[in-house]
Amino acid sequence: MKVSKEQIFEYNKKGLENHTEKLDFLAGQLTKKGHDVASIVSKLSEFQVAIPSWALGAGGTRFGRFSHFGEPSTLEQKIDDVGVLHSLTQTAGAVSLHIPWDVPSDYAAIKEKADSLNIKFDAINSNTFQDQKDAKESYKFGSLSNTSQAIREQAIQHNLDVIKIGDKLGSKSLTVWLADGSCFPGQNNFQTAFQNTQNSLIDIYKGLPDDWKLLIEYKPFEPNFYSTVIQDWGASLMLANGCGDKAFTLVDLGHHLPNSNIEQIVSILQLKGKLGGFHFNDSKYGDDDLTVGSIKPYALFLIFNELVYGMENNPQNPDLAWMIDASHNIKDPLEDLIQSLEAIQEAYAKALLVDQNLLRAAQEANDVVKCQEILQGAYRTDVRPLIEKARLNTGGVISPINAYRSFNVREELIKERGRNTVATGL
Amino acid sequence: MKVSKEQIFEYNKKGLENHTEKLDFLAGQLTKKGHDVASIVSKLSEFQVAIPSWALGAGGTRFGRFSHFGEPSTLEQKIDDVGVLHSLTQTAGAVSLHIPWDVPSDYAAIKEKADSLNIKFDAINSNTFQDQKDAKESYKFGSLSNTSQAIREQAIQHNLDVIKIGDKLGSKSLTVWLADGSCFPGQNNFQTAFQNTQNSLIDIYKGLPDDWKLLIEYKPFEPNFYSTVIQDWGASLMLANGCGDKAFTLVDLGHHLPNSNIEQIVSILQLKGKLGGFHFNDSKYGDDDLTVGSIKPYALFLIFNELVYGMENNPQNPDLAWMIDASHNIKDPLEDLIQSLEAIQEAYAKALLVDQNLLRAAQEANDVVKCQEILQGAYRTDVRPLIEKARLNTGGVISPINAYRSFNVREELIKERGRNTVATGL
Amino acid sequence: MKVSKEQIFEYNKKGLENHTEKLDFLAGQLTKKGHDVASIVSKLSEFQVAIPSWALGAGGTRFGRFSHFGEPSTLEQKIDDVGVLHSLTQTAGAVSLHIPWDVPSDYAAIKEKADSLNIKFDAINSNTFQDQKDAKESYKFGSLSNTSQAIREQAIQHNLDVIKIGDKLGSKSLTVWLADGSCFPGQNNFQTAFQNTQNSLIDIYKGLPDDWKLLIEYKPFEPNFYSTVIQDWGASLMLANGCGDKAFTLVDLGHHLPNSNIEQIVSILQLKGKLGGFHFNDSKYGDDDLTVGSIKPYALFLIFNELVYGMENNPQNPDLAWMIDASHNIKDPLEDLIQSLEAIQEAYAKALLVDQNLLRAAQEANDVVKCQEILQGAYRTDVRPLIEKARLNTGGVISPINAYRSFNVREELIKERGRNTVATGL
Amino acid sequence: MKVSKEQIFEYNKKGLENHTEKLDFLAGQLTKKGHDVASIVSKLSEFQVAIPSWALGAGGTRFGRFSHFGEPSTLEQKIDDVGVLHSLTQTAGAVSLHIPWDVPSDYAAIKEKADSLNIKFDAINSNTFQDQKDAKESYKFGSLSNTSQAIREQAIQHNLDVIKIGDKLGSKSLTVWLADGSCFPGQNNFQTAFQNTQNSLIDIYKGLPDDWKLLIEYKPFEPNFYSTVIQDWGASLMLANGCGDKAFTLVDLGHHLPNSNIEQIVSILQLKGKLGGFHFNDSKYGDDDLTVGSIKPYALFLIFNELVYGMENNPQNPDLAWMIDASHNIKDPLEDLIQSLEAIQEAYAKALLVDQNLLRAAQEANDVVKCQEILQGAYRTDVRPLIEKARLNTGGVISPINAYRSFNVREELIKERGRNTVATGL
Repeated sequence: MKVSKEQIFEYNKKGLENHTEKLDFLAGQLTKKGHDVASIVSKLSEFQVAIPSWALGAGGTRFGRFSHFGEPSTLEQKIDDVGVLHSLTQTAGAVSLHIPWDVPSDYAAIKEKADSLNIKFDAINSNTFQDQKDAKESYKFGSLSNTSQAIREQAIQHNLDVIKIGDKLGSKSLTVWLADGSCFPGQNNFQTAFQNTQNSLIDIYKGLPDDWKLLIEYKPFEPNFYSTVIQDWGASLMLANGCGDKAFTLVDLGHHLPNSNIEQIVSILQLKGKLGGFHFNDSKYGDDDLTVGSIKPYALFLIFNELVYGMENNPQNPDLAWMIDASHNIKDPLEDLIQSLEAIQEAYAKALLVDQNLLRAAQEANDVVKCQEILQGAYRTDVRPLIEKARLNTGGVISPINAYRSFNVREELIKERGRNTVATGL
Repeated sequence: MKVSKEQIFEYNKKGLENHTEKLDFLAGQLTKKGHDVASIVSKLSEFQVAIPSWALGAGGTRFGRFSHFGEPSTLEQKIDDVGVLHSLTQTAGAVSLHIPWDVPSDYAAIKEKADSLNIKFDAINSNTFQDQKDAKESYKFGSLSNTSQAIREQAIQHNLDVIKIGDKLGSKSLTVWLADGSCFPGQNNFQTAFQNTQNSLIDIYKGLPDDWKLLIEYKPFEPNFYSTVIQDWGASLMLANGCGDKAFTLVDLGHHLPNSNIEQIVSILQLKGKLGGFHFNDSKYGDDDLTVGSIKPYALFLIFNELVYGMENNPQNPDLAWMIDASHNIKDPLEDLIQSLEAIQEAYAKALLVDQNLLRAAQEANDVVKCQEILQGAYRTDVRPLIEKARLNTGGVISPINAYRSFNVREELIKERGRNTVATGL
Repeated sequence: MKVSKEQIFEYNKKGLENHTEKLDFLAGQLTKKGHDVASIVSKLSEFQVAIPSWALGAGGTRFGRFSHFGEPSTLEQKIDDVGVLHSLTQTAGAVSLHIPWDVPSDYAAIKEKADSLNIKFDAINSNTFQDQKDAKESYKFGSLSNTSQAIREQAIQHNLDVIKIGDKLGSKSLTVWLADGSCFPGQNNFQTAFQNTQNSLIDIYKGLPDDWKLLIEYKPFEPNFYSTVIQDWGASLMLANGCGDKAFTLVDLGHHLPNSNIEQIVSILQLKGKLGGFHFNDSKYGDDDLTVGSIKPYALFLIFNELVYGMENNPQNPDLAWMIDASHNIKDPLEDLIQSLEAIQEAYAKALLVDQNLLRAAQEANDVVKCQEILQGAYRTDVRPLIEKARLNTGGVISPINAYRSFNVREELIKERGRNTVATGL
Repeated sequence: MKVSKEQIFEYNKKGLENHTEKLDFLAGQLTKKGHDVASIVSKLSEFQVAIPSWALGAGGTRFGRFSHFGEPSTLEQKIDDVGVLHSLTQTAGAVSLHIPWDVPSDYAAIKEKADSLNIKFDAINSNTFQDQKDAKESYKFGSLSNTSQAIREQAIQHNLDVIKIGDKLGSKSLTVWLADGSCFPGQNNFQTAFQNTQNSLIDIYKGLPDDWKLLIEYKPFEPNFYSTVIQDWGASLMLANGCGDKAFTLVDLGHHLPNSNIEQIVSILQLKGKLGGFHFNDSKYGDDDLTVGSIKPYALFLIFNELVYGMENNPQNPDLAWMIDASHNIKDPLEDLIQSLEAIQEAYAKALLVDQNLLRAAQEANDVVKCQEILQGAYRTDVRPLIEKARLNTGGVISPINAYRSFNVREELIKERGRNTVATGL
């Protein structure tokens, strides 16, 4: 299943007039206010978010999983799916692999396929939260933090192997999400677990190519329900600092305690030059892994406001690895990802409309009402025409969900792959 | 301080052209999609929210309070302030009094003043969470739920007195917010406290005029930090049912545990015909009493989506008493209230854009992606021109915050009242 | 694997002297304070908690599952496991089955086995949160609340079938945990979902034998992450009231939003005669399903304090169905259950030590400090000798965990069943 | 009001026999298990907690305050109150002053009084969250983080003044609790606020005597309800590291988001040698400032388990400044403090009963059940006789609350001071 340029061209024809009308009107309004519309559209076009390979099939909970149909069952098919997303949205130009689920059998063929679809290999992910069939040691009681040296070594070696795989594909960063922790008080010695983790990460760090980054994810709970070794940004940063200049903190939106102010975390990490990556999703209760922007779109905008600020004002911080990390329990995974990509573009576009000079002046004057007016003024703007334009400029479709449906993508995938395929993942 | 029609006329002249341009464009787009723009604008014009008399001065926390200036120190001045709000926004056509802070000395004069400003007296509020100077009994350990009959009787009598005051002014409902509860395990017998409360409410209910409603508010914590007698909607509803047909539950947005799904509560209460009132504010952590829409505007929209549904589909539910219940710790209270009123209108307007038929069809088909598209499609629309139009139609200003500032309202109030006035309230 | 009376007799011999010494001392102290020690011990002996059949194997999370060994793979083996628990603790005299996981092939044989182990069949559980292999309809978008009549009917019929199975075994109540809800705003019409649920429950209720109870569980989230149809006790109670006198609310400790005051819910439900069942577990973040008492033992004590109060003062409330509902992700399930049973007995024993007359007097006098002293005085008492005595009186062991290990129970089970068995469950 | 040695002696006579009986029995049991009872008792005796001067009067909420009676209205009277607490409990041998509420008029006299009561001056606290009458600049929009240099300088100077006052009294540390933050998105530039804070703290640090410590407190929210500059331990630690070796993080139990694992924070900070102080209280919802141990005593025990571990294993971490930081809204403040002191001693005593060697072995073996048994075994022990003994050894009373009441302390204080005194504080 591939979406052709002709299909897209034909599809766009129908909506073009209305799009142009709306864009022209909006651009007129924005230009009057001093915005450089072309520059905003160009930034939107450039913004690319990685799709994780495990998000292309249906997700589930501990209570069960309801299959979707036509899921990709090989790495090739996963990349095909990302290709479909990218051809429609033009913002999904990267894939993030998960090892051992995605070990390529033929590296050259995989790279060629990805190249042909204009897809890069972004951060690669290791897995030490599950036992593999042939594994000598079990991660039941932890991996990088385990009290057993043999288990730690197995986990370290796995990460080193993952780096090698990523290196062959052109990845430039390794993301470590460590599920290690404890389910009950007393189970862990916090200090030992932390020091073991630090030492293990240092060993992994030593195997990192010079132009790579190590991204250390944090999470307060789940799958461990009493403590997690890397419970928050403070712990992640401490460990990153303990590794070296190429180690960074990775923020996943769903990995916070209730009511956390995530935008402040993002801002301070950028100030320190230590924000390395960002995982998008949304949630109401815990790490719900819902579609980006489906629950708290204003919070997402506020976070983007800080990210934009950092991108413009914090040269000490590197370029970020952006990725969607959601689970698709009841929606078609590809439709769900399209909705996420749109929500990300929307938040980014609105953040780009914030007049940073005006805001700074209002902040200096402690004009709190004005500060709010400025942020809300940007947020209340309907930026959909700008996003459509950004897509059109690079060959995408005006309305990706609509196009996906009118192209019968899922039906085609089922025809090709059958109904009862199951993608690797959660 | 009064804002004159001439001022408003002159002010609107400047912005009218741009407003009309935006409205025309938006109305065109909406009409194409099948919306009846005039009807939406008319509903927006009709929607009136009560301003609580205690919200016209600066609020504070237990750590202190920073005064604003020119605060109203009499009931007359409070009504003047609401008059200013209403003349600008045309959506603040009611005031909600709090007794004993607002006992009128001259009822006829107060009513005349309110009439002249087109302001109604909405739900009236009792206060049994603080001791009054001349009070015989103390509410330190509760009022309507107290183990002491004398204390309960004093609290009941106070509520009956409040009804009488409200009756003279034209109010049609009494709001009871009961702070009663406990700070420590064991302090209260939950069952005794609940039954005392039920009996006290029944005694108050007996004193209710036939055309009045009793609105019972709930709140999980604060000022009591272990338990609150009316901790949630379930307890409130039970008590309302125990009183009779004129008793209803009142929902305050900030009175919920973290992550509550408030829109579902609102919906089920309407289904049962028992949602009587609604207090607007916003919050990130607890009962933060921030400006409406300043933290979670999408949640507010989702709530309005249910409210609109109920207004259209639940004739068993009465008209609601709408009120802003926020605290203004660092903003000019009047500016803060204007921002709240705008956020309410915005959420309402967007909810009116939800195509309920399409939504119902998508729900029936379990097309979750489509359901989300429909809601987000409405939410992403920039409805500001509609709100401006609704204001213009009834004599308000295009941009209330901007007008408030250009009319130098606060400066005038300070001139009239002095800097160091303090309004009664929290 | 069965634990024999002889094993127990021999085991107890060793610890008896020290036990007696501690019991005598404690009994002396308690008697001096006016407690009737024999009566407390007798109440502890009588208190029996059902073991759910699905809790005898290892649980997991969406991220994976680490097997334990020697898990029961048939209903017979599950009952054997409960038999082991009961022989050691003498407080696990019931089992709670889950259909379709536990449909007996030979009812007479199963009943005989349970009888021989002194185990009753307590509340039986239906499952409409997963699809069964041969099912015509899918519960992906809900069961009792589904918009499709055919799906609702399948779910109703399943519950009616479950009642029949339970009836043959001697169960007297059906527990309905309804996972139905939505993952995204707009997905559900709250009112339709609620009404469908009410109607479906009424249909199930009609099939309930006269001496049965319908227990309606509530839960705020998971597996649905935006809304759950029966989100809290208020919704559950409304539905129970809509069914009739034999329908009750069931409280599961882990099914609450952060910071909920569960003891107050329990108390008010008993006041209204509507608390039907109780599921024990513990949690720090969400529905973590950890060992009872492992995280918040004082909260458990406070809840038991209300339960004891209700049992003594609320004849309007029926006897409760008690059950452990925990998941055993990293502990031996049987050891985990023993620790839970001990924690329950401990909380119950401490609650029995609260002097209700003194407490009532202190409450009446608003002597908050004294109220706390009374509760903490009971809680700080080391009641382990009382629990040991209660077990010894009915044939159990002094120290169940220790005995379990010294009898090599797990090793025996592995010998009998093999290592790689997997129990049905989550 | 002073409690005399004779009063104490007479009081203790009555309870001594029963105390001795219980202690002997417990000591026998503990000794059998290998515990060194004398050493535990001695550690309990040595453990001293500072009483904050502002906690000796009734506290309140933004909704009001109910006075207690006989509150201390001068610094002398406050120290008298601490003297009473210390004479009864022998664990309150320090006071923590708050400037400007407690500026001594006569340093020599104040020191002499404190000396005579055996009370030390522990960490001294600055206040930049309220405006003082004669202040030139307002802290409405922040102090150390303010965008205005003049305001920052005033706040820095205040802290330097506080150091000087503390120095004259023998204090050795300054605690900075910074309320700075924002109530609305956009109000603050997070990075500017953070950098201003860092720079201000460095300026204060420069004024610190060589043998002093700077303790930096964190808090996620309140009085600011959108963001707080020092929102968590990660931010506090970053700032402390930015100051130097004498700067440390201070943990207040109530200053965390829901469900935080505080014991892990405490443990990791000790590992890094950066835990400087600890504020005790308890809470169910937010920063409720309830009596220590009144809501989550097991969590307190778990925290003490880490503190004890750190005191024994982390020489890199300094001695901690211990303080109670609770608010007394409905209890007699002195009784409330006594209950807090007892809860602290209880948690400490139980933590001292944890067999660290056994625990470590069980952790190494991943025997999670055993780990829990070890912690719960210690926690379930009734340690009250040990605490009584610790008090008796140093001249305190067996039962402080009981003694306080039988000595009629409050009545005496009212006689001396009158009913309507009001202590400075919140």
